[in-house]
Amino acid sequence: MVVEIIAVGTEILLGNIVNTNAQFLAKRCAVLGLAMYHQTVVGDNGGRLLEAINTAKSRSDIIILTGGLGPTEDDITRDICAKAFDRVLYIDEAVQKRIEEYFVHRGDVKVAASNIRQAMVPSGAIVLQNDNGTAPGLIIEGEDCTAILLPGPPNELIPMFEEQVYPYLNSLGEETIYSKMVKLCGVSESLAEEMILDMIDAQSNPTLATYAKTGEVHIRVTARAADEASADRLISPVIDELYKRFGENIYTTDENESLEAAVVRLLKKHELTISAAESCTGGLVAATIINVSGASDVIKESYVTYCDEAKHRLLGVEDATLKEFSAVSSQTARQMAEGCARAAGSDIAVSVTGVAGPGNDGDKPAGLVFIGCCYNGETIVNEYHFKGSRQKVRDNAVIKALDMVRRMVIRNFGA
Amino acid sequence: MVVEIIAVGTEILLGNIVNTNAQFLAKRCAVLGLAMYHQTVVGDNGGRLLEAINTAKSRSDIIILTGGLGPTEDDITRDICAKAFDRVLYIDEAVQKRIEEYFVHRGDVKVAASNIRQAMVPSGAIVLQNDNGTAPGLIIEGEDCTAILLPGPPNELIPMFEEQVYPYLNSLGEETIYSKMVKLCGVSESLAEEMILDMIDAQSNPTLATYAKTGEVHIRVTARAADEASADRLISPVIDELYKRFGENIYTTDENESLEAAVVRLLKKHELTISAAESCTGGLVAATIINVSGASDVIKESYVTYCDEAKHRLLGVEDATLKEFSAVSSQTARQMAEGCARAAGSDIAVSVTGVAGPGNDGDKPAGLVFIGCCYNGETIVNEYHFKGSRQKVRDNAVIKALDMVRRMVIRNFGA
Repeated sequence: MVVEIIAVGTEILLGNIVNTNAQFLAKRCAVLGLAMYHQTVVGDNGGRLLEAINTAKSRSDIIILTGGLGPTEDDITRDICAKAFDRVLYIDEAVQKRIEEYFVHRGDVKVAASNIRQAMVPSGAIVLQNDNGTAPGLIIEGEDCTAILLPGPPNELIPMFEEQVYPYLNSLGEETIYSKMVKLCGVSESLAEEMILDMIDAQSNPTLATYAKTGEVHIRVTARAADEASADRLISPVIDELYKRFGENIYTTDENESLEAAVVRLLKKHELTISAAESCTGGLVAATIINVSGASDVIKESYVTYCDEAKHRLLGVEDATLKEFSAVSSQTARQMAEGCARAAGSDIAVSVTGVAGPGNDGDKPAGLVFIGCCYNGETIVNEYHFKGSRQKVRDNAVIKALDMVRRMVIRNFGA
Repeated sequence: MVVEIIAVGTEILLGNIVNTNAQFLAKRCAVLGLAMYHQTVVGDNGGRLLEAINTAKSRSDIIILTGGLGPTEDDITRDICAKAFDRVLYIDEAVQKRIEEYFVHRGDVKVAASNIRQAMVPSGAIVLQNDNGTAPGLIIEGEDCTAILLPGPPNELIPMFEEQVYPYLNSLGEETIYSKMVKLCGVSESLAEEMILDMIDAQSNPTLATYAKTGEVHIRVTARAADEASADRLISPVIDELYKRFGENIYTTDENESLEAAVVRLLKKHELTISAAESCTGGLVAATIINVSGASDVIKESYVTYCDEAKHRLLGVEDATLKEFSAVSSQTARQMAEGCARAAGSDIAVSVTGVAGPGNDGDKPAGLVFIGCCYNGETIVNEYHFKGSRQKVRDNAVIKALDMVRRMVIRNFGA
């Protein structure tokens, strides 16, 4: 079955609000196994809305309309849908009574006449109760197409969908959609796709799709099945195969786990502490780790050593090193990491020194970053050449620093 | 002129991402005085995208397409647009060179063959340079309709639009739209709006609109006029009036200046240095300051003291203070700031200690944050109760910390 979304509201076309309802509905429809090929936004204009509904009717089985059910003259969704589905509007007395009660409960003296418009129901429509506002939802079942009208405010739409529309839609279909996310570091999106092109081409259930994030690639594995257990049986061997191909480049298969959360999880598991000595990232590595709830188990202190003098005094980087190789060098990164572990008394230390840009720093080009990571007498230093804005260079450096820590832990302790 | 947006991407139809690009583009088009009646989302499907483009061509003067310019086989926007506008694709050597350089700079061994697809350009198209990724943007000027193709990732799309597409679109209209942004800290959006409601109601040219950001309010003053000088004459008295009403709550009238850039500008102007001692923000205050290019003039070093022992050892916070009042207290914040200035030898120091959440910390509720700021023997500590997620609490704390520094400088030295 094919579903599409029409959001009604000039405030979306003006950019005053972002259409988060579409994302919510899209996610829920995907879970229900409904195919979605179109989402549309139109303003509070009768002609254009009618056209959008007629187009949707011609190509989809279900149309979900959001917004335009309010009490004002701008709110035209109910009227235009009735027209498109050839229904007459009548005042539903039960709905009218609920609206009056809603206002009494709120302590309002009287119901605005305009609110009575919200009690108008197209003939034959199913009324969806609104526990969080006055506008009821409506389901109009046509011959080849069903329209579901939902109020625009998310705090009204979401509970109405979850409690009344989801069960309605679920009763129409036969299959469930279930997906798992595999998250990778250290492989570009194009290379990742090349490495699984055969799998993408061969698979129809489950399907594979790649997504690029800053410094990361996510692969979504999606299966359709009668229930979650059957979907899981389809997905598991695909995940195993991805592990075979990408190995420790995969940092998690938990949809909700970020790279920093995976790093904190690993450090906690092996009872390791970490500290950071940062120059161009200016505290962003520490801040990113500390954004994980419970990070206090693994990080106690951290240093931002932006000038040479601080690198020397706080971390013990030798003046001769700074003089001979400069602050942006493999040698300085190494001494920063080693000095950081010493000063903070942490098991692992990571250091970042580089040129965030936008300009070059002498003969060092913008984007040149050295990252050091030390554990138990071993220090690794990597050299990176990032592109993009100052922010982007720093964001990339943070990802690489976290990933180096992750690999250092795995090499010494396993995953 | 009528503009519409077509977002291309199955990830939007599946609800994996929310279409924030549409909101950004809608806002900017509204500022340009372009009418927008439709927004559409279609998946990575050639037939449906072609249909959407043809429909848009029949009713709009400008189509902005987002997404689908990546290197993989899913990315079809370039090909389908070329078809819809009857253009042939050729390899643009300059673009190809840029892509190759991008990968070399990133340190990747070789460019995936698929990335070369991104160098394909429809004949006669204007190429928009992408400073933050590999996919160039494209403008295809047809007879009755122009298509503008932009990459999907917001960190690529936004700068490309602001630097290259906005001026392009602005040059198409007869009148110039010119706007100035007034940025405030320390006033809520609803209060700000109340304070200028008379101005909003009275003005039609220039118009005023408020935007809420985390911890900030932005007021955009937009004028239409024949040229920039005339627009400026309309805008200037409005800006003066806003200064009268909001005073030092206004931190800048420069559209591109962030709060941290304004703080760095002020510190530089008065030749002051700063350091930070951070607990719950974990380095985010320092990182935010260091994100400003040229921050090395004002910040030399900074400390992340997440555990009590580090607060004592690095900053000299007294054990008795930590014991009696705990780490999350006005007293600790004060000693952190004062100890930080001492340790770093900076003119100004700012300290942050609090409960980022999600859970409470003993009797200290999540969201409770103390921020201290000291200069020249004077220390101010403010207590805040922030709402929202861990990330949100920390983001708010950073804004307040920066704003305290700003006000401290202004009080002692003027703006």
